[in-house]
Amino acid sequence: MTSPSGDDSGDNASGDDMGLLAPVSAGSDAEAATGDRAFLQAMLDAEAALTRAQATVGLAPVSAARAVTAAAQAEQFDPRSLALRARSGGNPVIPLVADLAAAVPEAAAPYVHRGATSQDIMDTAMMLVASRTLTPLLDDLVHAADSLADLAAEHRATPMPGRTLTQHAVPTTFGLKAAGWRSLVLDAHARISAVRDSLPVQLGGAAGTLAGFHAYAEADGVPRSDPGQHDPGIRLLATYAHELGLAEPRLPWHVLRTPVADLGAALAFTAGALGKLAADVLVLARTEIGELAEGAGGGSSAMPHKSNPVRATMIAATARQVPALAGILFGSMAAEDERPAGAWHAEWQPLRDALRLTGGAARNAADLTAGLKVNSHLMWSHLGLTDGLLVSERLNAVLAPLLGRDRARSLLVGASRRAAELGIPLEEALRELLDESDEPLPDGRSPKDLLPPARLRALTDPTAYLGSAVALTDRALRRTTAHKDDPR
Amino acid sequence: MTSPSGDDSGDNASGDDMGLLAPVSAGSDAEAATGDRAFLQAMLDAEAALTRAQATVGLAPVSAARAVTAAAQAEQFDPRSLALRARSGGNPVIPLVADLAAAVPEAAAPYVHRGATSQDIMDTAMMLVASRTLTPLLDDLVHAADSLADLAAEHRATPMPGRTLTQHAVPTTFGLKAAGWRSLVLDAHARISAVRDSLPVQLGGAAGTLAGFHAYAEADGVPRSDPGQHDPGIRLLATYAHELGLAEPRLPWHVLRTPVADLGAALAFTAGALGKLAADVLVLARTEIGELAEGAGGGSSAMPHKSNPVRATMIAATARQVPALAGILFGSMAAEDERPAGAWHAEWQPLRDALRLTGGAARNAADLTAGLKVNSHLMWSHLGLTDGLLVSERLNAVLAPLLGRDRARSLLVGASRRAAELGIPLEEALRELLDESDEPLPDGRSPKDLLPPARLRALTDPTAYLGSAVALTDRALRRTTAHKDDPR
Amino acid sequence: MTSPSGDDSGDNASGDDMGLLAPVSAGSDAEAATGDRAFLQAMLDAEAALTRAQATVGLAPVSAARAVTAAAQAEQFDPRSLALRARSGGNPVIPLVADLAAAVPEAAAPYVHRGATSQDIMDTAMMLVASRTLTPLLDDLVHAADSLADLAAEHRATPMPGRTLTQHAVPTTFGLKAAGWRSLVLDAHARISAVRDSLPVQLGGAAGTLAGFHAYAEADGVPRSDPGQHDPGIRLLATYAHELGLAEPRLPWHVLRTPVADLGAALAFTAGALGKLAADVLVLARTEIGELAEGAGGGSSAMPHKSNPVRATMIAATARQVPALAGILFGSMAAEDERPAGAWHAEWQPLRDALRLTGGAARNAADLTAGLKVNSHLMWSHLGLTDGLLVSERLNAVLAPLLGRDRARSLLVGASRRAAELGIPLEEALRELLDESDEPLPDGRSPKDLLPPARLRALTDPTAYLGSAVALTDRALRRTTAHKDDPR
Amino acid sequence: MTSPSGDDSGDNASGDDMGLLAPVSAGSDAEAATGDRAFLQAMLDAEAALTRAQATVGLAPVSAARAVTAAAQAEQFDPRSLALRARSGGNPVIPLVADLAAAVPEAAAPYVHRGATSQDIMDTAMMLVASRTLTPLLDDLVHAADSLADLAAEHRATPMPGRTLTQHAVPTTFGLKAAGWRSLVLDAHARISAVRDSLPVQLGGAAGTLAGFHAYAEADGVPRSDPGQHDPGIRLLATYAHELGLAEPRLPWHVLRTPVADLGAALAFTAGALGKLAADVLVLARTEIGELAEGAGGGSSAMPHKSNPVRATMIAATARQVPALAGILFGSMAAEDERPAGAWHAEWQPLRDALRLTGGAARNAADLTAGLKVNSHLMWSHLGLTDGLLVSERLNAVLAPLLGRDRARSLLVGASRRAAELGIPLEEALRELLDESDEPLPDGRSPKDLLPPARLRALTDPTAYLGSAVALTDRALRRTTAHKDDPR
Repeated sequence: MTSPSGDDSGDNASGDDMGLLAPVSAGSDAEAATGDRAFLQAMLDAEAALTRAQATVGLAPVSAARAVTAAAQAEQFDPRSLALRARSGGNPVIPLVADLAAAVPEAAAPYVHRGATSQDIMDTAMMLVASRTLTPLLDDLVHAADSLADLAAEHRATPMPGRTLTQHAVPTTFGLKAAGWRSLVLDAHARISAVRDSLPVQLGGAAGTLAGFHAYAEADGVPRSDPGQHDPGIRLLATYAHELGLAEPRLPWHVLRTPVADLGAALAFTAGALGKLAADVLVLARTEIGELAEGAGGGSSAMPHKSNPVRATMIAATARQVPALAGILFGSMAAEDERPAGAWHAEWQPLRDALRLTGGAARNAADLTAGLKVNSHLMWSHLGLTDGLLVSERLNAVLAPLLGRDRARSLLVGASRRAAELGIPLEEALRELLDESDEPLPDGRSPKDLLPPARLRALTDPTAYLGSAVALTDRALRRTTAHKDDPR
Repeated sequence: MTSPSGDDSGDNASGDDMGLLAPVSAGSDAEAATGDRAFLQAMLDAEAALTRAQATVGLAPVSAARAVTAAAQAEQFDPRSLALRARSGGNPVIPLVADLAAAVPEAAAPYVHRGATSQDIMDTAMMLVASRTLTPLLDDLVHAADSLADLAAEHRATPMPGRTLTQHAVPTTFGLKAAGWRSLVLDAHARISAVRDSLPVQLGGAAGTLAGFHAYAEADGVPRSDPGQHDPGIRLLATYAHELGLAEPRLPWHVLRTPVADLGAALAFTAGALGKLAADVLVLARTEIGELAEGAGGGSSAMPHKSNPVRATMIAATARQVPALAGILFGSMAAEDERPAGAWHAEWQPLRDALRLTGGAARNAADLTAGLKVNSHLMWSHLGLTDGLLVSERLNAVLAPLLGRDRARSLLVGASRRAAELGIPLEEALRELLDESDEPLPDGRSPKDLLPPARLRALTDPTAYLGSAVALTDRALRRTTAHKDDPR
Repeated sequence: MTSPSGDDSGDNASGDDMGLLAPVSAGSDAEAATGDRAFLQAMLDAEAALTRAQATVGLAPVSAARAVTAAAQAEQFDPRSLALRARSGGNPVIPLVADLAAAVPEAAAPYVHRGATSQDIMDTAMMLVASRTLTPLLDDLVHAADSLADLAAEHRATPMPGRTLTQHAVPTTFGLKAAGWRSLVLDAHARISAVRDSLPVQLGGAAGTLAGFHAYAEADGVPRSDPGQHDPGIRLLATYAHELGLAEPRLPWHVLRTPVADLGAALAFTAGALGKLAADVLVLARTEIGELAEGAGGGSSAMPHKSNPVRATMIAATARQVPALAGILFGSMAAEDERPAGAWHAEWQPLRDALRLTGGAARNAADLTAGLKVNSHLMWSHLGLTDGLLVSERLNAVLAPLLGRDRARSLLVGASRRAAELGIPLEEALRELLDESDEPLPDGRSPKDLLPPARLRALTDPTAYLGSAVALTDRALRRTTAHKDDPR
Repeated sequence: MTSPSGDDSGDNASGDDMGLLAPVSAGSDAEAATGDRAFLQAMLDAEAALTRAQATVGLAPVSAARAVTAAAQAEQFDPRSLALRARSGGNPVIPLVADLAAAVPEAAAPYVHRGATSQDIMDTAMMLVASRTLTPLLDDLVHAADSLADLAAEHRATPMPGRTLTQHAVPTTFGLKAAGWRSLVLDAHARISAVRDSLPVQLGGAAGTLAGFHAYAEADGVPRSDPGQHDPGIRLLATYAHELGLAEPRLPWHVLRTPVADLGAALAFTAGALGKLAADVLVLARTEIGELAEGAGGGSSAMPHKSNPVRATMIAATARQVPALAGILFGSMAAEDERPAGAWHAEWQPLRDALRLTGGAARNAADLTAGLKVNSHLMWSHLGLTDGLLVSERLNAVLAPLLGRDRARSLLVGASRRAAELGIPLEEALRELLDESDEPLPDGRSPKDLLPPARLRALTDPTAYLGSAVALTDRALRRTTAHKDDPR
């Protein structure tokens, strides 16, 4: 397989990457769909479809189309040799065309790559690879969304501390958190779906005018059709798209990189969306918190007792990488001329890596959400960690109208301090302060009478201070993936 | 204006930015819409709308809503003082609430910011600022697209060299190039429009449950509505969105950063799309090429004769910056908890800068396209620069069936070499080689008879080798901005 | 101040930024040193120094140098007007030269900016601004390093849980952690110092040949010096550097952007180094952990009880932004020609922002480390959270030689499970398992006799399992900032 | 080779990358040094050196060290199987340790990876890979610098147009341009050398305290040495560094990522430095300019006549990617705890890719500079393209003192316009205007007498307006790579 021919004899193929540094995607569908062999097959698929399309519009014999299609099997070609021979021209299509022409009967050889340019094949192959990667990626997003829907429904009223800037703030529910994760996953699904459904073939010939196809039509004596809609180049473009099941572009997009930029954006969005899920799991799985745990944690080479949140870790690592890769792709939009010297070549690896990483992250997200363990008793008990301070907002809302804002705040600050110092519940500290106070209430009553014990207990119960959390969760769960274009 | 109060007395306000390093946006609508005063006004608009929305749903007196609305005028507040006082809490809403409460009658003060959290105001203000920036930006994109449509129509058949990897390749038309630029501008318009139309208000209270509003409703004795659709928090959310003309989010999005990521993606796309236009103008305006020139070039402090493509330069500089800013925004999606410690704060300046830079670039693109000078005679004369090599692809297509591939290529390479060495047209070199050849054609004819002079002349005429360029241009021009959702 | 003249009358100056979205740097030295007025002063300093240097080498009268120096006061110029007028040429030097020439006596006017190009002034001004920002930044790094040295020394033997992938791993010390933070701060100091000490002036004239200065020397009849070392351009370059206290570059660096790339690298490094400190503080200040707290936490607009780690938050936000800004600067190195159309202009704001953000982060780091509260009792008590699992590595090391690897691991896994299930210390679970075991040890002894109670207690004491932590801390504290070039 | 064992049987290894999308590095030393097999060998080298170091300090038998060293041959291990088994723990060291222990005699097995953590091996292996990649990279930089020195010396006085913002500005020399490229290459060499010489081993054990080694020393009865300098962990660290020829770090740097950030910075710098060279070559090789050409240009799949600047293109593509990769590495400095969940894992592929891409770019730069063709006659003839405008700065310098600034500028503008309109040299246009003028000079002479023909010719000769270009070139060429620490 990696025995390069002739002039490459010094090559020892030691440059191969087999996923050793990529546990996020090793063995995944995304890895298989983006590897060099998969890319090679996609290039061959593009070449074969192009000859078939030309046969359909009368620019090639049907026998040539059949021969090219039959020969276009990746396992018959040597990707390493192609890689080495790609250096002189700067892309692997040039040697591939030579090898493919040599692999078909002589009569078919002239119809290999006829009229096309390397970029037609590279770009079309990249779209095929993207399409083939995004399909399982979308499945994994659906699996994750489904698991999250189950979690949100099951825990729609499970209270837990809401945390802001690392500190307990007010209560929330795990259901609302899971519904939020799901909403991001659905947003990602909508963006990826939209991009996948619009992935176009590329066909433009040497400089995007499709002139080569006109030249061959002329040379072959194909009758020139009427101008406009039946332009032979445009007909070929449509036929080519049909052959590959990709979209027909309005214009050749050699230097109009909308599809690449859109892929970058959707993948970076997805990596970020899954990164939010991972960030929360990593916090809530901490030894001191333990509200969540991955179904099967990862081991350690040094410590037998460790159970690490490995999937969340790998997703988090992805979320740190894909935005930068998308930035390269956005930057490559500013491509000069009819084919830029560098901007195009700079897209290949970042786009492939973004597909592979995000696909791997989606697989991990599907696994993680399917097996996530929720320790709702710890969520519950953590509500008491701040001795009632979690509901100080609510107490303030109730007390301010009764006491005036300043006196209410002063009372709450004092009670908070007492609760923290003595390690007693806020309810108790507040009761003590009210009982100790001599100053009558604005309405003349004694502070002692301000809040009867049952009322005070109710007000300081964090599980009774969930606002719209349940209603929001229920509403969010009514959203389905069917509403692809729903903005959020 | 910049006289900070009390403890900030040492401040000399020398940190102000007035656009000195930002010629791309200085004086533009985008700059005005994104400045600190504009942001301050947006925060005040958010606060006032929130009180009005609470009045509508019975959580505040109408008089308070009127009072807050009346007081919410940016010129009555000191942005520098707010900036300095923002340091202790990490955001400017905390001091703003204090100043706004002090600016309204005492009876209205409790209804300022009631139940809300800082992020509700910051995020909503950012969406208002985005909306106010994107509107003129979209106008500028429409102006640019219109100018480009005119250029494409006028030059639909103006031939020019197609260039790939910096070298002349085959002919194209300036019409097709301009149509391509326009198609990117329309793609950008579609993406910006979609994002603008979906910009949501933010409202969630301390941790996204809207619980504070429930607490105040309870404290005020507002009757508790039935659960589900009529949840008071959700009602308030809808009313708030209505007050501001922004979209109602399905969930509070404090840590579901879809709107911010979508803005980043659309702005980076737009900067890249305009960057393609700029990259081409910069190439074609080079002294040696001169096929294009900006309507009014920029001067130089050293060289009186210079006329620089300044607008393209400023657009190009933008296209280098916004992708990285979008990367920060995608990265901030991975936001832990109910409010992250850093990821949120890292969004503010990159998003504002991305809006301002891209808005400035759109203004420059509108100006540039309106005044672009096209030197079609230079385009024409450059077609001859390679002495006919520009049509070697066509000759190859015609000769290969007649001579066999190897002989055709050998003939063309020989003629190309002779043309280059002797500085004669390819037509002439080819004629000489054919005339000199002794080897008969495969069909037995003499090489002399292969191509009659008129046929040879026609085949080597670059202006007759435009393929589908005109048809593609016409088709592309039928696309309008009305088809917002058209992928390309 | 912001009253633009004449043709700018429509400008409402609402684009000003006064730090409202930048609490990290508002009111800081870095903000003051990087604002538009500071940049304007730096441009004026560059112009004045250039005229003085020309006077020194005989290219201008001393009176002109004095006049330009006297006029070069930022408060006499209108930065907003300059910003608006910068649009036509793409940089603010062109209008500044006009205003400065108008501000000096007529006889001095020809000597303003004589022979220079805009980039000479912009680049030199940027270096001055960088130098003026880095000086207080370095001071703040020294303050932070000193505070961290104190913390590390004080807590050199304070045990706390070491955490990996969010889980307790083995014990470490807070001293070692603080020493590690300090080592990063010293690394940052070394990199920033080296860059600051090498910041060069820029002088090259229109295209980097210094030819304009030769032309004026010739026009003025200045005798032509011998070639080589005494080249008048090179003499001027050295004199100019001397005037400003910046380094003399070997070559004009208009398109050799080493100083800008080095600044970007050092600032991104520093932001990342401080970001490590912030990341740890944010984890350890979590409500459930509480091992650290900022001296004076930030408040909340909604929750009276909150005390947020605001400084760490602002540093963390910086660490998310500066790497992307540095990426823009590295990208701008690929600058075509003698002055690129875009790559240069793309540097200005990212470099200024990187200086300002990192300077602000350094201030916050100095404050944070000076006031950091260490709750060593919580560190201590958290050592017990995993019921002894923290020392399982040590037990494994001791037991494996005695029991064989498989039996040792099986014993430890069993004991760990029992400890977790029953909520008992690992010591106790292990004792029970050993006592229950019937299988004799490899050496024939009873498992009961394997580990005497005192030995078992000692082995399971996390505070006795600190390895080289203290020795490493002591060694790290012997490093000082004097060893600037020490790699780590 | 890729036959995964047991549970991985479904794997078809189709994910392999063999360089198909990486022509920049395919077949290069950098590719070979960074491939998965090379990384695997580096991990094995790290494991073997660790056992040897332990033998040296008495923590392992010498026989074990020999056995591990003998077994540590990459070709005996299956990288694909390791990659697949890496998923559960998140890194490939865990399965590698199992396979390595199985590959040595039973008595040696306990000494494999004893006391270490996965990160010790991963990080050390990465430093070995970096070191092995940087050595040939530095050689290629030296080759490029040498070729550029030759070019600069040969063309020290070869005039060519200086270009700013895409327009001809004033003359420069190709020697100065080549000297500038070389200066960037030397800057890159200095930065890469400094980083390579400081690459450290990593050793810290589970949480950076080296405690595991203490535990095994204790279990083995190794006598406890005195504290401080002779701490056994620190001794092991020094011995380990010595074994591998890497630097000894002052502290374990699991979460003090200075080496990784420094590598990112130096590689991004190098990619940018080479990117400048490539950007200039791409401009000057344009069909319309042709002042430079690559020695052997690349071909095209569509156009037989094309000779593309392929090496410059591949370097340019690299310069667009590495800054973003460095940004990921800077961002990963903010790593929480004693091992972060994601930030560390996010480094592996970007760092490897940055090494490989930059190494490939350096190879291309060495080739490009060795074969660069300089068409000095075209440089010469282009000096006349603007009909003398290239020296307008000089004329202005000479005329302003004689005519006054306004009249001089007016005369030059008029002459420039006439030269452009009539297509005549500026010299001629100026002569005509002077001859036509009636207004006497300030000194009373006739304008006709202002500039004698010989003087005018000399003043408008672009080759006589080179300023300090030659002197600067000569000075720059005196710099050698020996001055590694020279800032510029």
